[in-house]
Amino acid sequence: MQRTTAEQRLYALWAECRELQASEDLLHWDQETYMPERGHAGRAKVMATLAGLKHRRLSSPEMQEALATCAEMADERSLLAAQVRCARYEVDRAVRVPERLAREIAEAKSAGLVAWERARAEADFALFRPALERQVRLRREEAAAIRPDGNAYDALLDYWEPGATEAELRPLFARLREELSLLVRAVVESGVEVDESPARGHFPGDRQVALGRRMAEAIGFNFAAGRLDRSTHPFCIGPHREDVRLTYRFQEHDFRPCLFGILHEAGHGLYEQGLAAEWQRTPIGDAVSMVIHESQSRLWENHVGRSRGFWRWALPHFRNAFPGTPEPDVDFLWPAFHTVKPSLIRTEADEATYNLHIVVRFEIEADLIAGRIEAGDLPAIWDDLYDQLLGIRPPDAAQGVLQDIHWGQGSFGYFPTYTLGNLAAAQLFAAAERELGDPEEAFAAGEFGPLLDWLRTRVHTHGGRYTAGELIARVTGKPLAPDDLLDHLRQTAEQAYRSTRGMVKCRLKAYM
Amino acid sequence: MQRTTAEQRLYALWAECRELQASEDLLHWDQETYMPERGHAGRAKVMATLAGLKHRRLSSPEMQEALATCAEMADERSLLAAQVRCARYEVDRAVRVPERLAREIAEAKSAGLVAWERARAEADFALFRPALERQVRLRREEAAAIRPDGNAYDALLDYWEPGATEAELRPLFARLREELSLLVRAVVESGVEVDESPARGHFPGDRQVALGRRMAEAIGFNFAAGRLDRSTHPFCIGPHREDVRLTYRFQEHDFRPCLFGILHEAGHGLYEQGLAAEWQRTPIGDAVSMVIHESQSRLWENHVGRSRGFWRWALPHFRNAFPGTPEPDVDFLWPAFHTVKPSLIRTEADEATYNLHIVVRFEIEADLIAGRIEAGDLPAIWDDLYDQLLGIRPPDAAQGVLQDIHWGQGSFGYFPTYTLGNLAAAQLFAAAERELGDPEEAFAAGEFGPLLDWLRTRVHTHGGRYTAGELIARVTGKPLAPDDLLDHLRQTAEQAYRSTRGMVKCRLKAYM
Repeated sequence: MQRTTAEQRLYALWAECRELQASEDLLHWDQETYMPERGHAGRAKVMATLAGLKHRRLSSPEMQEALATCAEMADERSLLAAQVRCARYEVDRAVRVPERLAREIAEAKSAGLVAWERARAEADFALFRPALERQVRLRREEAAAIRPDGNAYDALLDYWEPGATEAELRPLFARLREELSLLVRAVVESGVEVDESPARGHFPGDRQVALGRRMAEAIGFNFAAGRLDRSTHPFCIGPHREDVRLTYRFQEHDFRPCLFGILHEAGHGLYEQGLAAEWQRTPIGDAVSMVIHESQSRLWENHVGRSRGFWRWALPHFRNAFPGTPEPDVDFLWPAFHTVKPSLIRTEADEATYNLHIVVRFEIEADLIAGRIEAGDLPAIWDDLYDQLLGIRPPDAAQGVLQDIHWGQGSFGYFPTYTLGNLAAAQLFAAAERELGDPEEAFAAGEFGPLLDWLRTRVHTHGGRYTAGELIARVTGKPLAPDDLLDHLRQTAEQAYRSTRGMVKCRLKAYM
Repeated sequence: MQRTTAEQRLYALWAECRELQASEDLLHWDQETYMPERGHAGRAKVMATLAGLKHRRLSSPEMQEALATCAEMADERSLLAAQVRCARYEVDRAVRVPERLAREIAEAKSAGLVAWERARAEADFALFRPALERQVRLRREEAAAIRPDGNAYDALLDYWEPGATEAELRPLFARLREELSLLVRAVVESGVEVDESPARGHFPGDRQVALGRRMAEAIGFNFAAGRLDRSTHPFCIGPHREDVRLTYRFQEHDFRPCLFGILHEAGHGLYEQGLAAEWQRTPIGDAVSMVIHESQSRLWENHVGRSRGFWRWALPHFRNAFPGTPEPDVDFLWPAFHTVKPSLIRTEADEATYNLHIVVRFEIEADLIAGRIEAGDLPAIWDDLYDQLLGIRPPDAAQGVLQDIHWGQGSFGYFPTYTLGNLAAAQLFAAAERELGDPEEAFAAGEFGPLLDWLRTRVHTHGGRYTAGELIARVTGKPLAPDDLLDHLRQTAEQAYRSTRGMVKCRLKAYM
């Protein structure tokens, strides 16, 4: 009886926090899509109030009491133990961060976004620097509150990926840096270039979006419980599983950023729509971690969306969308989805070099939070790292240090989850292939249901029932590691550049 | 010092409530514009949580204490006294309504909307009845909590219009019923019909909206601090003065509902955008009452938007928007904006018969809340009253008792504010004409600024500084009364039907 009461109390309090979070999510979506331009200052106050209220509820004595009672009563490895673990993770952070700081962080998020947008539009880092300095100061303060004696960057990493540490990431990123640099160098030095012309031309924005929407539907995204809207920076939010919102942006001269962007966000959205209905508004009712979330977006974007099978299915839709363009065949188009080519903008990078963009950000933000460098140092360090790792220098800050939204909104420790997500995507997809067989023919027939069902039962429906590490080990039989990703990247690069060798437009040199 | 502290405390607590309200406003807007169809159930819970939190803050001991200290210290007629009056009005209601009931009311609002939409789509009152019965039960319960010994309907009226009572409204509505029935009968029996063909034809929706947007801009609505979107039922929300949102709907065969609807909502929006910046998030920082709000929408819709001067300015824009249509001149178009013609749908009714639609609703809801009738009686009573007052019977419930959103969301006591707003609009516009002179030439030149400035300084900027009654008396020199409205309606009807007599398409009979 007491157990039932404490559990009910925990869930009731949790539901309130979860609904405040849903409000924040929706207002964040609104801010990035439809809010009038002068709405920012007022919105920042609203967001701060919601964050403050959530913080107050999470850290309230009632919550701590209900949680302590549940913790005492939960059998090891039981569902209740998982509820306690997920709740404790958030409650502990809230208890340690004073409400004043939580509110200031929330307010700085909105203000930082405004400063970032202006600075990026004018390619002027000086316009962003004060806001960035404030974010760094606040996050250092937050980290010190959460782990007075620990590594400050770990405290922030842990916010996005429970349990992640700089010490674990260092060797992993070092290996990726080394092996991917070799791959990039091999491709660059070969002098072989993939012909990207089939992906370029004139593709009206509305038609790209209509095609992207068709693709998202095909892989299983339910638009009766979701939306697709335009924003500056694509994202996915899920206030609850029957209201999941994706955003996109497009470039009219190249359809890849828009289409792969929509598949990416739809991958996030499928996870949100696949969470267990019966656990909604309880601590385990949400996605377990950012890495698992990113694994879903990357899996659908890269392992499905860039595959030959997918494009055998997609080509007729593509032709309908762009009737004036020459009809590309899959063998001609496919290499353009698997280039290995140093570039400046992370979100438009190919699958392989993408992870080098993350290495740059990981190294910078770890040093920044630790106080080894300061905000004002960023532009020079950024440009030097791009030179070292990718062999190119940004011509201005908008294409360099100002390109990403994350630091502007105070998100440090987020970037590594992208690459960890790539690792997890490759590892999960390899496991799915082992169980379901080569998916090319199914994809070519538009049959994405078997893969989605596989992900639903093995990943989505579990929410926070298992930790991210437990989940990966349960589903793939091994801990998270870079091998499957590196295999996948080497194989696709080899195929893309080998098939390219025979083509007219390619300049052949000694390679592979 | 203690005074400053209590005041600051009051404003800090108030700001939090106001920001929860802003969140509710925005999520309500989202629900009516962009929310995915399956989002309703989850959204209802979020709305209930926000309403519950606001209720808890409003009724908290801290709030009551801060308010009591401020009340003791406020000099009569001071700004602080006005702050206390506005705050007390909300706090007293919150203290009396238990949180459980406040949450249930909020949840019933979302659920009621869903039931209403379905019932209206299928023209089936039975689908709506259970939701309506729940709303009536909850509102009777709320009224009993607020005024245990008073008139239940008064408790609800007071929510929308502080101080309004059934006893005061009865004679006022009786006079309107009598005088407007005479006017309607005179027009109907004359057999004269205004030629409405210039307002009919084929007007593509997007062009109507673009023109409506142009009109809203012209009268001063600032789209950098606002939006215009489509919804089933037009409305305006203002989470804060720099984020004010209007919605519209349109009929392609008649441009009047869309254009006058946008001017109506823009009138509401101008009030919100005109509230004093320095009082934002304090108790007097919002619009004083629904009647004053409605006076602003009606003033711009009817006294400006339907005027000859406005259409002398608007015609070139109209021709640009609809290049294929015959070019109407103002004398030909104007009578179509001033018909007096019994019709079924309130929101599409002409200025005169509109108030008879309100009389029907006022009589029904007063009886319903008092328990003199029950929800199941409504369709028959509704149809009989339309027969008596307007001489027509709805062919189905969608065009009858199900046409309005209000009862579905539990808003009883709201309808009378529409007609009181019409009274106030006519009285304010008459005062403006006395001070600014005949506005026809200014309007014809597109100069709406002088009127907007007049309203800004006399009405908008005061927020809740004065009561609605005080404000009307200060600005117009007399208490709210139906005379200016009745004069306006008689004059426009006389002119419209007189000018019509000379026209070819009109069947002339003895009239006026």
